[in-house]
Amino acid sequence: MAQFYSKRDLHFNLYELLHVEQLSQYAYFQDHNRESFDMILDAAEQIADKMLHPLLTEMDRHEPQLVDGKIRVHEGMRPIVKRFGEDGWVNAPFGYEEGGQQLPAVVHNAAAFIFQSSNYSASVYPFLTTGAANLIRSFGTQDLIDTYTPLMYNGRWQGTMALTEPDAGSSLSDITTAAEPTDQEGVYKIKGQKIYISCGDHDACENVVHLLLAKIKGGPAGTKGISLFVVPQKRFEQNAEKGKKEQGEGLMSNDVSTAGVYHKMGYKGAPIAHLMFGSNDDCLGYLVGEPHKGLSYMFQMMNEARVGVGMNAAAIGTAAYYASLRYAKERPQGRPIAEKDPSKPQSLIIRHADVKRMLLFQKAVVEGSLSLLLQCGLWADIAHVAEGEAKERAEMLLDLLTPIAKSYPSEMCLQTTSAAVQILGGAGYTTDFPVEQYYREARIHPIHEGTTGIHGLDLLGRKITLKGGKGVQYLTEEILQTIREAKNIGEETATLAAQLEEALQRVQKVTGHLLGLAAKGEIENYLSDATLYLEFLGVVVIAWQWLKQANIASTSLSNHPEDSFYKGKIATATYFFEYELVKITSLSRRLLSQNHVTVEMSPDWF
Amino acid sequence: MAQFYSKRDLHFNLYELLHVEQLSQYAYFQDHNRESFDMILDAAEQIADKMLHPLLTEMDRHEPQLVDGKIRVHEGMRPIVKRFGEDGWVNAPFGYEEGGQQLPAVVHNAAAFIFQSSNYSASVYPFLTTGAANLIRSFGTQDLIDTYTPLMYNGRWQGTMALTEPDAGSSLSDITTAAEPTDQEGVYKIKGQKIYISCGDHDACENVVHLLLAKIKGGPAGTKGISLFVVPQKRFEQNAEKGKKEQGEGLMSNDVSTAGVYHKMGYKGAPIAHLMFGSNDDCLGYLVGEPHKGLSYMFQMMNEARVGVGMNAAAIGTAAYYASLRYAKERPQGRPIAEKDPSKPQSLIIRHADVKRMLLFQKAVVEGSLSLLLQCGLWADIAHVAEGEAKERAEMLLDLLTPIAKSYPSEMCLQTTSAAVQILGGAGYTTDFPVEQYYREARIHPIHEGTTGIHGLDLLGRKITLKGGKGVQYLTEEILQTIREAKNIGEETATLAAQLEEALQRVQKVTGHLLGLAAKGEIENYLSDATLYLEFLGVVVIAWQWLKQANIASTSLSNHPEDSFYKGKIATATYFFEYELVKITSLSRRLLSQNHVTVEMSPDWF
Repeated sequence: MAQFYSKRDLHFNLYELLHVEQLSQYAYFQDHNRESFDMILDAAEQIADKMLHPLLTEMDRHEPQLVDGKIRVHEGMRPIVKRFGEDGWVNAPFGYEEGGQQLPAVVHNAAAFIFQSSNYSASVYPFLTTGAANLIRSFGTQDLIDTYTPLMYNGRWQGTMALTEPDAGSSLSDITTAAEPTDQEGVYKIKGQKIYISCGDHDACENVVHLLLAKIKGGPAGTKGISLFVVPQKRFEQNAEKGKKEQGEGLMSNDVSTAGVYHKMGYKGAPIAHLMFGSNDDCLGYLVGEPHKGLSYMFQMMNEARVGVGMNAAAIGTAAYYASLRYAKERPQGRPIAEKDPSKPQSLIIRHADVKRMLLFQKAVVEGSLSLLLQCGLWADIAHVAEGEAKERAEMLLDLLTPIAKSYPSEMCLQTTSAAVQILGGAGYTTDFPVEQYYREARIHPIHEGTTGIHGLDLLGRKITLKGGKGVQYLTEEILQTIREAKNIGEETATLAAQLEEALQRVQKVTGHLLGLAAKGEIENYLSDATLYLEFLGVVVIAWQWLKQANIASTSLSNHPEDSFYKGKIATATYFFEYELVKITSLSRRLLSQNHVTVEMSPDWF
Repeated sequence: MAQFYSKRDLHFNLYELLHVEQLSQYAYFQDHNRESFDMILDAAEQIADKMLHPLLTEMDRHEPQLVDGKIRVHEGMRPIVKRFGEDGWVNAPFGYEEGGQQLPAVVHNAAAFIFQSSNYSASVYPFLTTGAANLIRSFGTQDLIDTYTPLMYNGRWQGTMALTEPDAGSSLSDITTAAEPTDQEGVYKIKGQKIYISCGDHDACENVVHLLLAKIKGGPAGTKGISLFVVPQKRFEQNAEKGKKEQGEGLMSNDVSTAGVYHKMGYKGAPIAHLMFGSNDDCLGYLVGEPHKGLSYMFQMMNEARVGVGMNAAAIGTAAYYASLRYAKERPQGRPIAEKDPSKPQSLIIRHADVKRMLLFQKAVVEGSLSLLLQCGLWADIAHVAEGEAKERAEMLLDLLTPIAKSYPSEMCLQTTSAAVQILGGAGYTTDFPVEQYYREARIHPIHEGTTGIHGLDLLGRKITLKGGKGVQYLTEEILQTIREAKNIGEETATLAAQLEEALQRVQKVTGHLLGLAAKGEIENYLSDATLYLEFLGVVVIAWQWLKQANIASTSLSNHPEDSFYKGKIATATYFFEYELVKITSLSRRLLSQNHVTVEMSPDWF
């Protein structure tokens, strides 16, 4: 099969680093063990390899089109969507009583990573449905749950998140989609438009269920007046029989129409819709939970979605890494730097230090990202099933690091996919190889589910100081624990540990300086470089992940001294510290500067 | 007109920074003055605005296609190519006796910059012909010059550089295209194939003239056995009359066929061909200059082409900057960071510090690059017409800084066009706005005309030590001169000057360290991070350009205290030093490290 990810690395993360099999100590996960996880991951690989990956290029070349008011997607999507539903991928993490498998999020995410690295566009359909259904089951009435979720779980109905509007992108408080109460309790008339809705309409499903944010007339201004609704594309006829409804029959139009499909630089296999709700005053929405609490419900889904976006970015970066690695191992070009004899045969380019540098860069970023992202999945599981301090610690670490888990892979995989293109040279710029597609696909991730700028503000303006900085305290404890272990393992890990210790001191210094600006009321100056702070802390967190990996690899090497996998791990950790962690020297110098040129710059001076 | 560049900034560079009007002191340029330059630049703007820019998107959507063995380009290219020829753009820098205008290269390049920023793909056609013709007129026989160049100058015949082969991309010593002598002196039979040939075949011209590298049978191995040939797509019939030849008539096939056209991520308006030479043993090539000296001739063209690539990258970056600036000035979204009242109207996004940061980043990179690139053009002019030390200094500075002039804009404009996309958010990822196209188009520049890796090796492995390091000595003198001036102007420039002084010391330390490795015979370690050294020195050189700009702006502000252009220049210089120059702290830390993980990494460990 084409290599678009590394099974060995995924297993290393799950079983050597995170020991996810230990989750079975909790009642909710008690039926699971390493064998069941492996079976699930192997099943994911099968589908990824046989169904998704073969369509990677084709779906890019044949974009979704709006035909007679309906978005038509690649015909290969219909069997894929069906298969995802039938095999239980949509609701795998949910309870047995809901038809789920009580699968840990960390394993579900690992399976998603396999799908995403094989064909990003195709992978988004089912997981959007998972997120939407999760909102209904968490906050909706039993009637909403019974009516909607079974048909979403089996893949016949698509779920979406409908947030963005033409005048409200990053600023959700400015949405204007209106919800007007009807005679029926919990039922509202919806009117408005939403843009950039992933899978907002397509012909590989029978119906679309939008989890939509709107303002109930007369509610408070701003984000406090936002409510959450289930708004199906087609709704059940008023008197539809229960038996028919269970079969998804007896549907009528719910006055949701598709105004357009976006044509995009990449991510072309997934349809992104511009939708109109209630153009004929006949669009009904069903309130989820209480009025005006929509944004807090939505954030549950968004936080998952944000970790998911980081995973998508890391997955695309991983696929690009393996595509360029394969090329580097097959392509002869040039000779060793000291070889002057042109009659000698050319070397494979993987022998050149600069090519190895570009490969190490990719490996360091994507494997470092993956380990943080899976760690986030494990924290989500622990927050779900544990109690007391363990639960609180997991919740706070997940909350603190979500902006980094989303943004670090998103931003860095622009550069790693670029390195993949560079390794292929001219060939990489042509459509004969997949790396140019990966480069285009990666570009969406710093934008959707909150731009990088928004996540910078979230991290520095909110998460750092939450509950008196307890999240930062937990993170520091975790990192110090890894450093202590590293110092006891051997010289190599001890050297890295010393560098991470120095980095931690920089984090404290920089964070203290910035919070000092906040304390002085210099709010603009405090937050003006929040994006750089996000990058700065992101590098340190990924360095921590690499030290954890190096600790395991170094320990394991004593039993398997010839294992190239572990040797590669230690070399890549070293690379990360030498070439990436070192960047915080410059970043901290900037973040400590008294000069605030971006604040002082006048718009007229551009 | 749509703003894709800044006339004010171009004039600032030419007349306030470089004083190019002073070139008229040299006999070759004596007929020129600021008025003639302005007329030429205004004429370029007219063509760019009326002919090139309107086709920007269309040419991207309708790629060249190979139909019946011939590449068909967008039909709008024919009048453009014709116009470039008729208006004398192809041979403007050449002598009056050749029909040229003796235009300084710096002004010709400035005009090219206008074309490139309006529509990169369309702009490459004429300037490729300029480069090819320049090789013929510099090294060819009078007969070759008379036969080929007039029809190239008037735009009827396209010129190309035919270097790359399937097994010889970065490694030119491995080309296998063969040249076999015929009975006729200087005429050879050519056999082989070339790939990635820009404008290698298209239907907007009547004939294509390839400046082709091949090996004469029996010649030395490697680069020392490479010769340069003129190989036309169609050649004149043996007995074609002189009068007919002057009209470009009496042509027959020269057995050059088009095997394919590349489909690419961007740069789609220009046809990139895969060509077969002599498949029927009937392809004639005409030797240019002496046998086996082809590579040294070609390097003349490549050095110009490399500065040209840097200019292309800066031009695309400039167009993306203005597209995102316009959006930022029109798009309301969010509120000031301290404003909590959601009933207040939204702010324009240009008021947000993070958006200003992304705009300043673009402005700092593209304007800093442009000033270095125009400086290179001026050095080329001085090298051309001056004598003695002035000539030598200009030659050596141009030679030393060509890798940076090519690579800094190429690499950095990947990031600036990315910032432009980010400013537009979701809209930037759609094809409704041009920034996604700029992002795709920018990606070719770190690849063609020598990858960034090759330029790193060229800079650190060759240019730095050339003639006992005299180029570096000249550069240091120039920078110190700028620093001295800055210290005398005012506090702001003096602050920047102190930072640049510190940076210069780092350059000396790092360069000394790396040359020390070379002296110890650690050749692999010495050159393994040559790409990083290129980045490192590039940042310092652009900082120098910004200090020069700040000096002029600061001086001018005392007479025009309200001029936003000059205020913007000082703020942008400050931005560059605060956010970009600071990166050398980390880069130097890495470059001074004793750890050589990229050299030691084994291919098996990936």
